[in-house]
Amino acid sequence: MAGTNAGRGKSTRQKTREKRGKTERQELDRFIPGFHAVRETLGQEKNPLQEIWIAEGKRSARTEEILRLATAGNIPICFKQQSYLSDIFDDISHQGIVGVTKAFVYSDFQQVLRRSLQKGPSALLLAADHITDPGNLGALIRTAAFFSVHGLILPKDRSAGITAGTLKRASGTHHRLPIAQVTNLGRSLDELSKNGFWIIGAAGEANFSIYDFDWDRPVVLVLGSEQKGISPSIRKRCHQLVGIPSPGGVESLNISVAGGVVLSEICRKRAG
Amino acid sequence: MAGTNAGRGKSTRQKTREKRGKTERQELDRFIPGFHAVRETLGQEKNPLQEIWIAEGKRSARTEEILRLATAGNIPICFKQQSYLSDIFDDISHQGIVGVTKAFVYSDFQQVLRRSLQKGPSALLLAADHITDPGNLGALIRTAAFFSVHGLILPKDRSAGITAGTLKRASGTHHRLPIAQVTNLGRSLDELSKNGFWIIGAAGEANFSIYDFDWDRPVVLVLGSEQKGISPSIRKRCHQLVGIPSPGGVESLNISVAGGVVLSEICRKRAG
Repeated sequence: MAGTNAGRGKSTRQKTREKRGKTERQELDRFIPGFHAVRETLGQEKNPLQEIWIAEGKRSARTEEILRLATAGNIPICFKQQSYLSDIFDDISHQGIVGVTKAFVYSDFQQVLRRSLQKGPSALLLAADHITDPGNLGALIRTAAFFSVHGLILPKDRSAGITAGTLKRASGTHHRLPIAQVTNLGRSLDELSKNGFWIIGAAGEANFSIYDFDWDRPVVLVLGSEQKGISPSIRKRCHQLVGIPSPGGVESLNISVAGGVVLSEICRKRAG
Repeated sequence: MAGTNAGRGKSTRQKTREKRGKTERQELDRFIPGFHAVRETLGQEKNPLQEIWIAEGKRSARTEEILRLATAGNIPICFKQQSYLSDIFDDISHQGIVGVTKAFVYSDFQQVLRRSLQKGPSALLLAADHITDPGNLGALIRTAAFFSVHGLILPKDRSAGITAGTLKRASGTHHRLPIAQVTNLGRSLDELSKNGFWIIGAAGEANFSIYDFDWDRPVVLVLGSEQKGISPSIRKRCHQLVGIPSPGGVESLNISVAGGVVLSEICRKRAG
């Protein structure tokens, strides 16, 4: 039960993983692991894959499909040892198939602001206040792309960034919307507010229902972390907090599900 | 690259895992891994935890919180070796904290049918057609609980069941709704249909929008697998296929996000 116990009995694989981790993890935003994520990315013209890694000895209908698509698209295939892939991707399920892209480049916040202003009252941005789980962030990106959000704003600190785990769950949709990383989310929201955006926070405990809000205005929808919700400094910047009524009395939804529900309602109201 | 390569170079840990897998995995529906899932389950009166496992040598604010709550609730704590937990939970992130409950008991389909019939036109069931990913199923259960669905119907074959991975993502919500496992989903839908339920399938390619459908009737909402959608034998049983319009032209949403969007729309329409 002593703290030092934790390091005992580490396998060679664990040690290698930790060592490799320091160097290769920095590049994790280049890797799209998993069959579905790779297949979906293969279908895109924008930001094509530079190469595809397949685990040695892996022969399945899935790898055959990827090999066929890669050959048709002139994308080089590299065979890698299964253990090499497992070391790099740790607990991310890569299924022996990994796409390699150019390093991800974040969009410039000022540019996202300017471009979305051109959309007038239909401008719709998403701000994620410290979502730390890469899978949740990836699912949120996919949801934001589905509902045609004009940009996603992430704080630099205490937030998941674009990593292999994010890209796997985003299923190749991360190039469909600009994603900006800002040093101070509060200050960025202030600037958006000055430019006519309404800062609307989604909070489980809010009494104002998403179904009653008038979404016909430029909106930044703010989603907080699943555990702590929207942080106080961001909360005080919100013009309105809105909630999804739960007939089941359950406290909260997964963040990407909550995002999807609110974005769906915004699109429905605006189209109606 | 030969198929036989796959077995080479297996670590002792991998071998142990495979061996343990056969026996202990059968009981995986008793384990709720992860800090948040355990904390949320601790707050529930229904189906209390029988004991909590904490990884030896793990001391963090999170384990302290769990230890405090467990002591207050008179729940025994067992300390387990980190490697033991990793062997059992394989690629499920357990964070050194695992709740142990009674084995999960599925509800009887006939009972779910009878009880939901009592809800009249507001009856709402969810049927998942071969969702194989436990995480997706868990997230869907949480979403279904949030929107107070009267029951979830799962086919026995080619579907994820209630496992540790499902329970982790369901975050302790799996006791809030009856979950029935049926041998033949098609036949169960036929029976629901005969009893006045409308079988409504959510399909990405459907032209009929979820926003235009009249949800004021007893509904079984059918969700298909992310990869293959609703299978042909289930599809032909649907009275209507409905789709979520994507302004972004993205093909599909994560299954729990899609479920959340449709369930939210059903609840909104029915309340309005």
